[in-house]
Amino acid sequence: MDLQNLLDDIVGTVQPLLGQGAPADYIPSLAAVDTKQFGISVATANGDVFSSGDADVPFSIQSISKVYALALVLAGDGDRIWKRVFREPSGNPFNSLVQLEHEDGIPRNPFINAGALVVTDRLLSIVGNSPSPVRELLRQESGNSSIDADPEVAASEATHSHRNAALAHFLASYGNLENPVDSVLEAYINQCALEMSCTDLALASRFLANNGLRGNGTALLSPSQTKRINAVMLTCGTYDAAGEFAYRVGLPGKSGVGGGIVAVVPNKCTICVWSPGLGRSGNSLAGVAALDEFTTRTGWSIF
Amino acid sequence: MDLQNLLDDIVGTVQPLLGQGAPADYIPSLAAVDTKQFGISVATANGDVFSSGDADVPFSIQSISKVYALALVLAGDGDRIWKRVFREPSGNPFNSLVQLEHEDGIPRNPFINAGALVVTDRLLSIVGNSPSPVRELLRQESGNSSIDADPEVAASEATHSHRNAALAHFLASYGNLENPVDSVLEAYINQCALEMSCTDLALASRFLANNGLRGNGTALLSPSQTKRINAVMLTCGTYDAAGEFAYRVGLPGKSGVGGGIVAVVPNKCTICVWSPGLGRSGNSLAGVAALDEFTTRTGWSIF
Amino acid sequence: MDLQNLLDDIVGTVQPLLGQGAPADYIPSLAAVDTKQFGISVATANGDVFSSGDADVPFSIQSISKVYALALVLAGDGDRIWKRVFREPSGNPFNSLVQLEHEDGIPRNPFINAGALVVTDRLLSIVGNSPSPVRELLRQESGNSSIDADPEVAASEATHSHRNAALAHFLASYGNLENPVDSVLEAYINQCALEMSCTDLALASRFLANNGLRGNGTALLSPSQTKRINAVMLTCGTYDAAGEFAYRVGLPGKSGVGGGIVAVVPNKCTICVWSPGLGRSGNSLAGVAALDEFTTRTGWSIF
Amino acid sequence: MDLQNLLDDIVGTVQPLLGQGAPADYIPSLAAVDTKQFGISVATANGDVFSSGDADVPFSIQSISKVYALALVLAGDGDRIWKRVFREPSGNPFNSLVQLEHEDGIPRNPFINAGALVVTDRLLSIVGNSPSPVRELLRQESGNSSIDADPEVAASEATHSHRNAALAHFLASYGNLENPVDSVLEAYINQCALEMSCTDLALASRFLANNGLRGNGTALLSPSQTKRINAVMLTCGTYDAAGEFAYRVGLPGKSGVGGGIVAVVPNKCTICVWSPGLGRSGNSLAGVAALDEFTTRTGWSIF
Repeated sequence: MDLQNLLDDIVGTVQPLLGQGAPADYIPSLAAVDTKQFGISVATANGDVFSSGDADVPFSIQSISKVYALALVLAGDGDRIWKRVFREPSGNPFNSLVQLEHEDGIPRNPFINAGALVVTDRLLSIVGNSPSPVRELLRQESGNSSIDADPEVAASEATHSHRNAALAHFLASYGNLENPVDSVLEAYINQCALEMSCTDLALASRFLANNGLRGNGTALLSPSQTKRINAVMLTCGTYDAAGEFAYRVGLPGKSGVGGGIVAVVPNKCTICVWSPGLGRSGNSLAGVAALDEFTTRTGWSIF
Repeated sequence: MDLQNLLDDIVGTVQPLLGQGAPADYIPSLAAVDTKQFGISVATANGDVFSSGDADVPFSIQSISKVYALALVLAGDGDRIWKRVFREPSGNPFNSLVQLEHEDGIPRNPFINAGALVVTDRLLSIVGNSPSPVRELLRQESGNSSIDADPEVAASEATHSHRNAALAHFLASYGNLENPVDSVLEAYINQCALEMSCTDLALASRFLANNGLRGNGTALLSPSQTKRINAVMLTCGTYDAAGEFAYRVGLPGKSGVGGGIVAVVPNKCTICVWSPGLGRSGNSLAGVAALDEFTTRTGWSIF
Repeated sequence: MDLQNLLDDIVGTVQPLLGQGAPADYIPSLAAVDTKQFGISVATANGDVFSSGDADVPFSIQSISKVYALALVLAGDGDRIWKRVFREPSGNPFNSLVQLEHEDGIPRNPFINAGALVVTDRLLSIVGNSPSPVRELLRQESGNSSIDADPEVAASEATHSHRNAALAHFLASYGNLENPVDSVLEAYINQCALEMSCTDLALASRFLANNGLRGNGTALLSPSQTKRINAVMLTCGTYDAAGEFAYRVGLPGKSGVGGGIVAVVPNKCTICVWSPGLGRSGNSLAGVAALDEFTTRTGWSIF
Repeated sequence: MDLQNLLDDIVGTVQPLLGQGAPADYIPSLAAVDTKQFGISVATANGDVFSSGDADVPFSIQSISKVYALALVLAGDGDRIWKRVFREPSGNPFNSLVQLEHEDGIPRNPFINAGALVVTDRLLSIVGNSPSPVRELLRQESGNSSIDADPEVAASEATHSHRNAALAHFLASYGNLENPVDSVLEAYINQCALEMSCTDLALASRFLANNGLRGNGTALLSPSQTKRINAVMLTCGTYDAAGEFAYRVGLPGKSGVGGGIVAVVPNKCTICVWSPGLGRSGNSLAGVAALDEFTTRTGWSIF
């Protein structure tokens, strides 16, 4: 498998899709991103990195941050978080309040906004917010110490956060937050506003393909914990299109409305794709197509 | 890996769970089954079969039949069925009418009852109902030509079929059935009432682990179609506990309220477990525990 | 109050609305009705009848029949029916299955289709279906012995009855039907297909304005039962626009998709309006406007 | 009709119900109220007041305040508020977020919490919050200038306001609030925390029975606006038991979780009952029974 050639091919294949779809439009700084951009990076288990297209352009990682927050909570706390959040696909748009109400304040999974607020709340309790633990993990694993939140995106999110504030107050009304609503929202917004490139993200996610081992060889998670995060990514990682993503791509993956998607081939590699044009379910149109092509060409679907 | 020893060990491990849970109680012949029974069989890609416990006791396969109906429709018709049924997890109990109403008569996936009625309807249009195509496939792949529907279960289902009749009429009201409601219900009930043992089911499912190849080496499905059925099994195969099943077991699987579960390790083997005591979500309690133990001991989770 | 002049005025007032809205389109014989027609009749407590416009043109009474079926069940059976059907507004479109599922097979009220099927089922048990008890009541109270079901509408409904069949099977699955699904559907369809004019319906409904007394002076219902039917009409009689209807018209009323509406001014009169063009909620556009004008001009709102 | 005797009789009739039901328990100061108390007052159109039982004990008016906020907004602003809130019964528990999400941030009616927050928001825009316009109206109409919010209840509500904060942020996320979330919540909490007796409330509500005329003879509302508030009270005033209340009592009414209910007999009188034990739907058990008895004995149901 010549991965470099494959990635270059994929960049060609997705050209007709670039500019299709729409960027996230709920905050101005996301809406302004050029949707013609596309990047892809692969980081292999043995340490090689391949990339093509706009793989080194930083973008807003948004919901992809939820994976690392969950990993840090599992690392710090073991299975306790599962008393406060389920791990079932939601079958509903990602920021829905409905299921939360039907299920007494227990979010369906850690990758919908409500669930991620609970995870972030727990992370605040375990390690605090200064320095931001998600940012520190991503800096260390990617080797890029300049990773930081985009202050403009963070400020913009803060002024458009009524929906997440509603979720957080709703969780609090069920007793499912430990910290003040404002602290949880601030930490959550800062995680989502982190800016990283495809290469940064592929490198930083290697522990998911390596049985939980960090780049320095120490264990962030046990092999079993790692498999389980991958299972949650597969069933819940791509909003209400998780079934479709499993069907087409066949890999655990987590997307963000910034247009990025991180996918994992267990024991082989991590892949990060990015293109800002989103499909109806909030996943990058060209990104999903690129991953589909990747697993078709490599045969590396987990199924 | 000494599979025989492993299966014998698992039979021991699940003993404390036997008798827990309750059998399906909506029809008398299912409710009367002894919940202390447990069987497990593994059929490997190279043709070996290992089994332990009550692996040769026939039981009602119920919803497991939905996998084979889907396979036959994809084999006969390609992707056309996906215009009439989605492939997203439902996030709701398996026979819910709610989502059907919210989504204009398109069932969420082929493994909830509404979706399986659509698949059965299409199968009737393609190959007719005489002889029953699902029964024929299962006989051929298992090599057991005596497989048949339990007439008592089928009769019992027919007199308790108001819920499925409601679903079928509801689908028909949206124009999503091609055949008369009564014909679809009859075919559906007969599929569900098939009686098979763990060994029968493990053998009959090998095509899911073998890139779509039947026991005689001919292709039932393409490798890509096979991966995709496995993906749908993983995200939608165990009612509203699919996320939990992926998390604990880490394999594509399909359960039935008779207490059976078929799971697939791609390119390695198929596994069938059976124990009639069901947990809250309708999956065999001891069956899920046995599969959890199996993947923990073998490391054969797909994640 | 010169009622004749008032009704003539109202016929003038609603002219601009005629032809707006759409007739019910789910069966051909309803869809073909000329939407320019409008009729209004008032039957007073002391026996006078006033009418204007197309008040003597027969139309399909459809859901208005639900009032008389309920009255006959209360007359025959007292309050027992309220164990099988609630009397709360539904807050959802009139033939929804959702609430039925959330509330274990007890319909929200007797005027949604599911509730009317339960009432019809009970009526079948009390008095049988031959001759049709609703038809007999309407013939006697209107003095028009030629009232009958339109066979074309009934046949058409029967071939488009999948939705109601789904509801009936769903009710049966919860044990909330006493008679076979097919018998209940047949009786229900025949009631809905009755053809009557505004004058027929205004006369036939006088017992609702007269404390339950029939035209011949005998009691069909007690005064208390009559008030309670009127209360259910006010809160549940006009699909999911009951709040709007109470707000604009301020009278108990029951509408049908044939374009008729019967309203009650307790102790004063009954009113029937008809015009086939329906608004978004399934109520006659010109009919609601005419009733709004009627209560504004007479001051006879109950509020 | 000797109203004094009637009210005394009713006090006797409801004795067996006192102590049944539970007080609102979400804040300590409501939970501590003695549920054996019961009061009833009637204020007639010609200015007489009759009362019996604990009719002069002040209690927390809670949601009854929503009627006066709505009246002031209609008085100040006419029908404009109906672009921001519907007037349909909700068919769901009173603080549900579900319908809000299904209907794009437009609450179902002004008497569920979400709708009352929108009304309060508008009232803030029209007349500000200092002095509290609802308190001023209630003082003037009751003639009791000592009416005020219970500071302990208000403080307690403020520390248990996550659910209402969630609703307010959710409304804001749809652009359906004009003022800052915190200001709206503060005004809302202060209205709900007002303390009044049955006599105070019966007097203060007379404009609803008198075609909108205030005690001093000036018009607060037009006759038509008054009828329409009564219509909304009938269809939406008693949480998800509005149908039941209309059926049993047959009057427009508005209840609060403090155990009070205000009911209106148009052109005749207003009635206020109070007893803190609540039934399943959040309405006073003895209060509903007392109103049922009142309309049965007087025949003053509007139906």
